[in-house]
Amino acid sequence: MYIVLVYDVGEKRVGKMLKLCRQYLNWIQNSVFEGEISEVKLKELKAKASLIMDQDTDSLIIFKSREQRWLDKEVIGLTKNDTDHFL
Amino acid sequence: MYIVLVYDVGEKRVGKMLKLCRQYLNWIQNSVFEGEISEVKLKELKAKASLIMDQDTDSLIIFKSREQRWLDKEVIGLTKNDTDHFL
Repeated sequence: MYIVLVYDVGEKRVGKMLKLCRQYLNWIQNSVFEGEISEVKLKELKAKASLIMDQDTDSLIIFKSREQRWLDKEVIGLTKNDTDHFL
Repeated sequence: MYIVLVYDVGEKRVGKMLKLCRQYLNWIQNSVFEGEISEVKLKELKAKASLIMDQDTDSLIIFKSREQRWLDKEVIGLTKNDTDHFL
């Protein structure tokens, strides 16, 4: 499954969320990630994210598409190259 | 067409981008919008956004899906209700 994940968390939790999400997905913008992920891995990611988040103030949105080709991506301006992800 | 739009712009331009995007889409998170939009309206939105953005530092990513049902959305934590959008 292909997903786009965006989070909005308090400043104190940004570092932890970033580190967590980069373990599972590609970082494409400030708080935006995308990538192929299995149901099991996504469940794991959501569970870990929930532990970091303050459920009253933070937000995590996941858009899921069964196939990546069903979702076109267009970038205007700066493109983030998350090459570190593969190290 | 159904789109998800995320931007990352300098603090000085956040207000303008927010105002612009809310004219076309529903605000669902800090810098994340979604909604049905026509090709013509999207072209208009992109042109206006480009005028606001600093192309060297700012970023705008648009995910397009031909049909909304091809994209599942899951929200964890806080949900933003953009009721103002309909006023």
